[in-house]
Amino acid sequence: MSEERTEINSLGEFGLIELLTKNIEIQQASTVLGVGDDAAVIDHFGRQTVVSTDMLVEGIHFDLMYTPLKHLGYKSVAVNLSDIYAMNATPTHITVSIAFNNRFSVEALNEFYEGVYAACEKYGVDLIGGDTSSSQKGFVISVTALGEVAPDQFVKRSTAQKGDLLCVSGDLGAAFLGLTLLEREKKIFLESPQLQPDLEEQTYIIGRQLKPEPRRDIIEWLEKNDIKPTAMMDVSDGLSSEILHICKQSNLGVVLYEEKIPIAQESKEMALKFGMDPTACALSGGEDYELLFTMKQEDYDKIVMSEEISVIGYMADISEGAHILTKGGNKFKLVAQGWNAFQQ
Amino acid sequence: MSEERTEINSLGEFGLIELLTKNIEIQQASTVLGVGDDAAVIDHFGRQTVVSTDMLVEGIHFDLMYTPLKHLGYKSVAVNLSDIYAMNATPTHITVSIAFNNRFSVEALNEFYEGVYAACEKYGVDLIGGDTSSSQKGFVISVTALGEVAPDQFVKRSTAQKGDLLCVSGDLGAAFLGLTLLEREKKIFLESPQLQPDLEEQTYIIGRQLKPEPRRDIIEWLEKNDIKPTAMMDVSDGLSSEILHICKQSNLGVVLYEEKIPIAQESKEMALKFGMDPTACALSGGEDYELLFTMKQEDYDKIVMSEEISVIGYMADISEGAHILTKGGNKFKLVAQGWNAFQQ
Repeated sequence: MSEERTEINSLGEFGLIELLTKNIEIQQASTVLGVGDDAAVIDHFGRQTVVSTDMLVEGIHFDLMYTPLKHLGYKSVAVNLSDIYAMNATPTHITVSIAFNNRFSVEALNEFYEGVYAACEKYGVDLIGGDTSSSQKGFVISVTALGEVAPDQFVKRSTAQKGDLLCVSGDLGAAFLGLTLLEREKKIFLESPQLQPDLEEQTYIIGRQLKPEPRRDIIEWLEKNDIKPTAMMDVSDGLSSEILHICKQSNLGVVLYEEKIPIAQESKEMALKFGMDPTACALSGGEDYELLFTMKQEDYDKIVMSEEISVIGYMADISEGAHILTKGGNKFKLVAQGWNAFQQ
Repeated sequence: MSEERTEINSLGEFGLIELLTKNIEIQQASTVLGVGDDAAVIDHFGRQTVVSTDMLVEGIHFDLMYTPLKHLGYKSVAVNLSDIYAMNATPTHITVSIAFNNRFSVEALNEFYEGVYAACEKYGVDLIGGDTSSSQKGFVISVTALGEVAPDQFVKRSTAQKGDLLCVSGDLGAAFLGLTLLEREKKIFLESPQLQPDLEEQTYIIGRQLKPEPRRDIIEWLEKNDIKPTAMMDVSDGLSSEILHICKQSNLGVVLYEEKIPIAQESKEMALKFGMDPTACALSGGEDYELLFTMKQEDYDKIVMSEEISVIGYMADISEGAHILTKGGNKFKLVAQGWNAFQQ
């Protein structure tokens, strides 16, 4: 190692990725799109292959105390498929590599793979390879998903246009609230193991956390209705962070309307119980795996036919910056930690 | 988790993989070859895509005390490319995902990626994606490699024929002996930090451990000389284990000649220093990343032109079993732990 030491925290994840990938030299003529989007794109003689990969680490991305292994297997696949759909592509194949210590039994791994296979079956994807290995501590999962798309029909983050409508599928914030509830119940259980949590009434938000579904239906609906998004990505880190990615990569500003952000009734109620602002949960909660996309204004009449898609704002000139207009009529700068936007 | 508990050790890695993948149902018509070989094969309208993935875990697969991060980055890519070449394919793209704790600095990660990029440049491969994540403990690396091959020119493990010659590239056992030497020096250093190891004379075996090269040259030589292997795989676990894979998957027996197994002079000398049998090191050492393949007898005249390829035996009827004929004229049953074969 060299003698200088720069802490990784000082760069943040995106800064780190930028630094580590800035010297990439593309050698293959078939590389259509490399690092920096939901997935990469490779040309294959008439079709294009889309490739995405995600790593999930116990204690960082999941807690086995409240995550059933079958759900974990399902989610590991689902979050990768979500990246493929976010390219406007169809997932076809996955590889799954895992590392685990001797705490795990064969039955436990079987449960994990039951979830993997359930997701494969539901989304018509083949598991074609992987690796199993020991770990020093905890469970590590690495999934790579391949998909296909007709030539140049993939949708990047960098191609939004000024004036385009900003849209999102489904509702936001529920996965974060589900996680918050599970973390609270875990804390109560650890302090008083005799208290059994009653989570029956919260199946929606807990399901959104433990078993997310990639939005294949949205991609199919858009295609059927002849709408091609101008830019698209999935919501894994939180709405505000993702919107800022599209702004930065498309070199644009944005206006986001707080009142248009779709939030489920169950999420609103749980946020209030926790003393949280539902909008902040949607802006910075993450793990919703909804699709965030931009489209031309003239497609507005078509999009209102979908109950699953909300128009939440529009893309503006870069000189206008990125802002959220609140229900109260205030205008705040949009920041990656949406929570802070309301603490100014 | 279910109530039964079967220890994973009771199955072994291959038993575990068999169990976890036995219920796979292929849904995609494009899946030409799934789990169970060096890599999977997908059809892409005239060309075929080959996919392989490997996970490397600190403390299991590598020790950062004597593994420079740049070498580790290079090796992480190299071992995956080796799987692609072992399919008779050409690697084109990789993804690299890593998990690390805050012990790592930006400079350390930069060194690791320097090795990744060096391997990419040497083998003409593009890095197209990945993921960076925190880990609870240690460094975890997951690489997926994609390659291409002309239609149905890929070579599986299961297609060897009775009477075929068994061949291997390069020499064997050196990577294991390099590891043994590094482990010994580590132990000495921990006990007496003032003693500086002198590894200058052992650059060959240490290089074989720390910086393996996938055998692209062998694949190119075979193609140029119009030899298509009937079965092939790379030597990652050890020669005897890999030979037994080809036997099992091709439903054949084998006769292996001890005197034909290629072992470098440096390896023989180091084995003797350690009081080990050089043949046992070759049979069960592993990590040589040489290519093990079978070919038709009529190609023998061509293969003798290569100084890099040794004919080490021939494929026999399954009823004859798998045996090694020793230099002393004895015949032993070949077992996955080659070491044991000499302890009967």
